[in-house]
Amino acid sequence: MKNRQIILAERPAGVPDEDTFKFLESKVEEPKDGQVLIRTHYVSVDPYMRGRMIDAESYVEPFKVGEVIQGGSIGEVIESKSDKFKIGDMVMGMFGWQEYYLATENEVRTIDTSLAPVTTYLGILGMTGLTAYFGLLDIGKPKAGETVVISGAAGAVGSVVGQIAKIQGARVVGIAGSEEKISYLKDELHFDEVINYKTTDDIAVDLKQACPNGVDVYFDNVGGEISDAVMSQLNTFARVPVCGAISSYNLEEIDLGPRVQSLLIKKSALMQGFTVGNYAERFPEGARQLGQWLQEGKLSYRETIKEGFEAIPDAFLDLFKGKNIGKQLVKLI
Amino acid sequence: MKNRQIILAERPAGVPDEDTFKFLESKVEEPKDGQVLIRTHYVSVDPYMRGRMIDAESYVEPFKVGEVIQGGSIGEVIESKSDKFKIGDMVMGMFGWQEYYLATENEVRTIDTSLAPVTTYLGILGMTGLTAYFGLLDIGKPKAGETVVISGAAGAVGSVVGQIAKIQGARVVGIAGSEEKISYLKDELHFDEVINYKTTDDIAVDLKQACPNGVDVYFDNVGGEISDAVMSQLNTFARVPVCGAISSYNLEEIDLGPRVQSLLIKKSALMQGFTVGNYAERFPEGARQLGQWLQEGKLSYRETIKEGFEAIPDAFLDLFKGKNIGKQLVKLI
Repeated sequence: MKNRQIILAERPAGVPDEDTFKFLESKVEEPKDGQVLIRTHYVSVDPYMRGRMIDAESYVEPFKVGEVIQGGSIGEVIESKSDKFKIGDMVMGMFGWQEYYLATENEVRTIDTSLAPVTTYLGILGMTGLTAYFGLLDIGKPKAGETVVISGAAGAVGSVVGQIAKIQGARVVGIAGSEEKISYLKDELHFDEVINYKTTDDIAVDLKQACPNGVDVYFDNVGGEISDAVMSQLNTFARVPVCGAISSYNLEEIDLGPRVQSLLIKKSALMQGFTVGNYAERFPEGARQLGQWLQEGKLSYRETIKEGFEAIPDAFLDLFKGKNIGKQLVKLI
Repeated sequence: MKNRQIILAERPAGVPDEDTFKFLESKVEEPKDGQVLIRTHYVSVDPYMRGRMIDAESYVEPFKVGEVIQGGSIGEVIESKSDKFKIGDMVMGMFGWQEYYLATENEVRTIDTSLAPVTTYLGILGMTGLTAYFGLLDIGKPKAGETVVISGAAGAVGSVVGQIAKIQGARVVGIAGSEEKISYLKDELHFDEVINYKTTDDIAVDLKQACPNGVDVYFDNVGGEISDAVMSQLNTFARVPVCGAISSYNLEEIDLGPRVQSLLIKKSALMQGFTVGNYAERFPEGARQLGQWLQEGKLSYRETIKEGFEAIPDAFLDLFKGKNIGKQLVKLI
């Protein structure tokens, strides 16, 4: 049985392209004791993976050139030599960009498909939802009546952040880059105000209109000039969870902008970078709360799904073109 | 009786100069019921005052053109129509850059000259010491064995921060701009490592040597390129109390530097701006602890004192030339 795989062929400078990835075939191995063989159904592609493609120290190890790209996935157990898993179990783990994955039993977690659709475990009930949950509530700490601004608002994380902020009673302002995203945020997620940064004449003016009482929480998914504009309108004691900086991930030069120190002092404001892994001990709490809100209809979600194994690199690159609404996934079978 | 005063003559662009300040004389008024007349002994000059000279929203109101420059001072009650103060009492308050100040009794606080020299109430036992205390302990939260880097380390705040960090058992690295300051930090305050940013070939290399285990807390008094260098060596979960950005206060152009978002994410690091006023409710706690450490000989301090009322503007401008070690004061009588 053949296993198709995508490896990191070379580290990208700037935007990853066809030279970055290489398709390979290998032979699927049989599981040994304590192992299971998984057939991948869904692959998650996420902006943070761009950071792992360069050879620099970060919160996760860089991908190795010549090895299969790692990433979150969902699959089905098709052979098992573990007491913990039986054939047909739907499971999640870091199976990577390949059709089959031979896992030791402790790398894999069963998902309950009776509670929610399988894909939610890669999205709103998975790392994406938990990122939104902990970043907003633990760092942003929005209070009722406060103004929460979210960049990358229609993305997988941003769209959940906005909904949780609404649940907290905050006024929610989303920044996104297409009319389809703007409609989604306004009409489906009921954001209070939305700004299309691609069509605005002056984002600072639009922000001032959308945030007449200033910005109390800025959930930053993008960095760059959008963040410069939002930061300049922070209120005293504002909190800025720094979740992503997608505007800079493909830059080849140093990302220069206004230094923030004077601003932070003037406003007694806080910026805190984080990754969801910091909250690993509290994942059960977050997953329980997100699941409850989802069941109560207080949270909704969208997915952008490409079909076919070959589509994985394109799905990944679409993230940087701002094409996805909600969680970007690839469906293999 | 004549009162000499210094007013803000015009708002400075760039470095304040002779056109910024104007000397005036006015008549000293008699106190009414509930008022006291104070003769200024010491005037505090502080970098934050530069921020008040421009007409921009900040945590304190801008100075008004044509009005006496406000600032912390110590003086003696020379006439009193208040039950709370008697002639000869040494008091502190915001008397400003003038020889006499007519105060209502609730603007003024008696200081206990038997506990510590009067000038300490403008320095290590005053706003300066409290700034160091709360910024370091409430935001920086150094643990024993961690590395604390301080810029502006020989200044009024920095020199106290370093000593408190030592009391907490941290390894302390100071950055300063003269050999005299470096000797002071090393020989008198027993900092573990010191870097002269003016004579170093490469501050990043020096920092790496001084901080072999990276930077856990960066107490930032200066901003600019020094901070860029320190920030690039933060450890995971580092904390950065942002206290001052003196490198930028006299800039006329936008202060551009590397954006910090990606770095903060990679390191799950925190930057928090603050001003001592945020901790007003906890001043008694801070003052008590600082006083105790001072009495126990665990804290020492230096002052740089200019003599004479006319010297106030120069003493203020010296702050931006890096001339002072410890607290910069002006002694009027």
